[in-house]
Amino acid sequence: MTPNDLQALALPSQSLLAAVRRDAPLVQCLTNYVSMNYAANAVLAIGASPAMVHAEEEAPEFARIAGALVINIGTLSSPWLQSMLLTAQAAKAAGTPWVLDPVAHHATAFRRDAIERLLDLEPAIIRGNASEIIALAGGHSAGRGVDARDAVAQAEQSARDIAVQRHTVVAVTGEVDYVTDGARAVRIAGGSPLMPRVTATGCALSAVVGAFAAVSRDDPYVAALAALSCFAIAGQRAAVQAEGPGSFAWRFLDALAALEDDCLTRESPLR
Amino acid sequence: MTPNDLQALALPSQSLLAAVRRDAPLVQCLTNYVSMNYAANAVLAIGASPAMVHAEEEAPEFARIAGALVINIGTLSSPWLQSMLLTAQAAKAAGTPWVLDPVAHHATAFRRDAIERLLDLEPAIIRGNASEIIALAGGHSAGRGVDARDAVAQAEQSARDIAVQRHTVVAVTGEVDYVTDGARAVRIAGGSPLMPRVTATGCALSAVVGAFAAVSRDDPYVAALAALSCFAIAGQRAAVQAEGPGSFAWRFLDALAALEDDCLTRESPLR
Amino acid sequence: MTPNDLQALALPSQSLLAAVRRDAPLVQCLTNYVSMNYAANAVLAIGASPAMVHAEEEAPEFARIAGALVINIGTLSSPWLQSMLLTAQAAKAAGTPWVLDPVAHHATAFRRDAIERLLDLEPAIIRGNASEIIALAGGHSAGRGVDARDAVAQAEQSARDIAVQRHTVVAVTGEVDYVTDGARAVRIAGGSPLMPRVTATGCALSAVVGAFAAVSRDDPYVAALAALSCFAIAGQRAAVQAEGPGSFAWRFLDALAALEDDCLTRESPLR
Repeated sequence: MTPNDLQALALPSQSLLAAVRRDAPLVQCLTNYVSMNYAANAVLAIGASPAMVHAEEEAPEFARIAGALVINIGTLSSPWLQSMLLTAQAAKAAGTPWVLDPVAHHATAFRRDAIERLLDLEPAIIRGNASEIIALAGGHSAGRGVDARDAVAQAEQSARDIAVQRHTVVAVTGEVDYVTDGARAVRIAGGSPLMPRVTATGCALSAVVGAFAAVSRDDPYVAALAALSCFAIAGQRAAVQAEGPGSFAWRFLDALAALEDDCLTRESPLR
Repeated sequence: MTPNDLQALALPSQSLLAAVRRDAPLVQCLTNYVSMNYAANAVLAIGASPAMVHAEEEAPEFARIAGALVINIGTLSSPWLQSMLLTAQAAKAAGTPWVLDPVAHHATAFRRDAIERLLDLEPAIIRGNASEIIALAGGHSAGRGVDARDAVAQAEQSARDIAVQRHTVVAVTGEVDYVTDGARAVRIAGGSPLMPRVTATGCALSAVVGAFAAVSRDDPYVAALAALSCFAIAGQRAAVQAEGPGSFAWRFLDALAALEDDCLTRESPLR
Repeated sequence: MTPNDLQALALPSQSLLAAVRRDAPLVQCLTNYVSMNYAANAVLAIGASPAMVHAEEEAPEFARIAGALVINIGTLSSPWLQSMLLTAQAAKAAGTPWVLDPVAHHATAFRRDAIERLLDLEPAIIRGNASEIIALAGGHSAGRGVDARDAVAQAEQSARDIAVQRHTVVAVTGEVDYVTDGARAVRIAGGSPLMPRVTATGCALSAVVGAFAAVSRDDPYVAALAALSCFAIAGQRAAVQAEGPGSFAWRFLDALAALEDDCLTRESPLR
């Protein structure tokens, strides 16, 4: 893309960030125990309203009033999977967009089976690291678990394949992110090497992708790239003063909350 | 109340804070996954000892040795509800005071039913935001989930109604808090607009209310206003140097730990 | 031991820290809800890779690929206990070393029974506070729950007894730590009084002990003292600038990440 194309692409991100802050959409998260607190704080920092409502008894009902749903299988178990399936189904029926974070889905048979069933419920956006996306497309990944051991560039073809086959948006995050809906694609630079050293940063991103999906129901591709742009800029800013992963974690929340709407065009990380 | 009355009311708070630090009461929390870490740190910061013992197999037994019990339905599920009911029952039987935090109880049928059953087990103190308290009294609230969309002032009548009907203390928190036992009532000013932007701040407050309830068994009204006073002062102090919600969160824990016993009379936030 | 002996003992710690950072071993944690985030961040900070894979459906399978397994009963329930037993068994069968953190095991009948069953599965290392270790050896402890009310010195005999009887390494942590495998023993000084005021510090330590156990399979005694040494040095450094428990928590993660390999010999906390 030309610089002008990229600038044109950055404009909707700016409007979406303003919309998130104006509407404070309810983002329902069925996420893992490790990330719940940090993801909720990231959703609050960006201006949306997190709701960690997960149980089978109420999560499907709640999905009908939520602005978006985020499902993350980081600490999966049978009762949670059962609820995730029912809630994704309810979201689908209600037209609530939902985001899938397939954490370490290739690590065990239980996860491999779970992810197949979740994929069939048509997530609007899939957000994962390179190893996860390569494995999702059936490729051989170097990842052992939650960590990414492959470069994003090696996952771009996998991302496009999944996007086309599943009619979804795929966001691969790493040193340089990649977002595609099969037809369109863009890279996002920025962030910080400290981000993978803070647990739940990826999970928090998936939750924030949900916040943007809630205010961009007709175009989840733009929602994903707006959310990733916010993380790229806030990550870069937070790293300036961080002395390690501990100080990065809270500085990053401060930076998310302090993002000016127009930073997404002024400092656009789209490449 | 006159300034003298308020000052007289602040005095017991000061003794209670000293008692919390001297006795380090065990505060058993059946709370949500989002808040567990932050609530435990807040309880430690104020000088008490948190115990997140929640399972049906042991929580009722533990309630008999705990100084107070705190039940928060933020991430409710059937097994947790079952344990909450048994544990509240055990607390009631043992004379252990217990605090109820009815998070988003009006959001789903599952929660509405759960909260009715919990209320029947006679919490000593109920701590919620304005939307939750209005809905608890049967009113129509603007809240959609965990966020408060009503002002505390609009919940004061609801709080009094619940306090009288349920023989309990009701603490409504927001920009200016309100505490009542039906007969007595007081407002508490202070805190910071950053507090609702940090997830689990309300849950942490409910846990700290438990710490004070443990050392003020004969007067839960004073326990509640002492805990809320600590949060109001610490919140105000933490906000001075905070640059956003990320830095506020840890500064607030530092501020709680640094509260001088006599700040509750010297800088009393009672109004 | 003479200063020369201690210095000789510190040398392997230094190699192990380098090995953790080079190999980034997978540390599978079945730990409590309160500590999951902080423990994962501590494992990342030391250079290893945390995996909070806990469910019965997959945790035993995962234990075969993990470098080490850590089991912590802080927020125990029946489904988790069932999974812990199966996973420890799988670890044992696969030769994966595992670490037991017997949080408040003496507080309820449920825990007392659970800990007996877990001990029979032969943990390589047990890490607890003085009250927990005294109670584990059948002694009468002053602890009421998760907090330690006994001094480490009073638990040293208990630690030796357990180590000999169970053919395991016992690490007792407190103001001055004590590590023994029954034959060998060493004390570790350092840390900070703020450490017990931050929830999950002990749980995070147990997880980091797992990281070292993964790279020291033939000598868990050295793994334990290396992990405790890292915590002692990082804790001491973090305390210098900390203004309370809130700022200590993140400064400690920064300090863990910033440890130079040779600090373990240059500033050896072994006594």
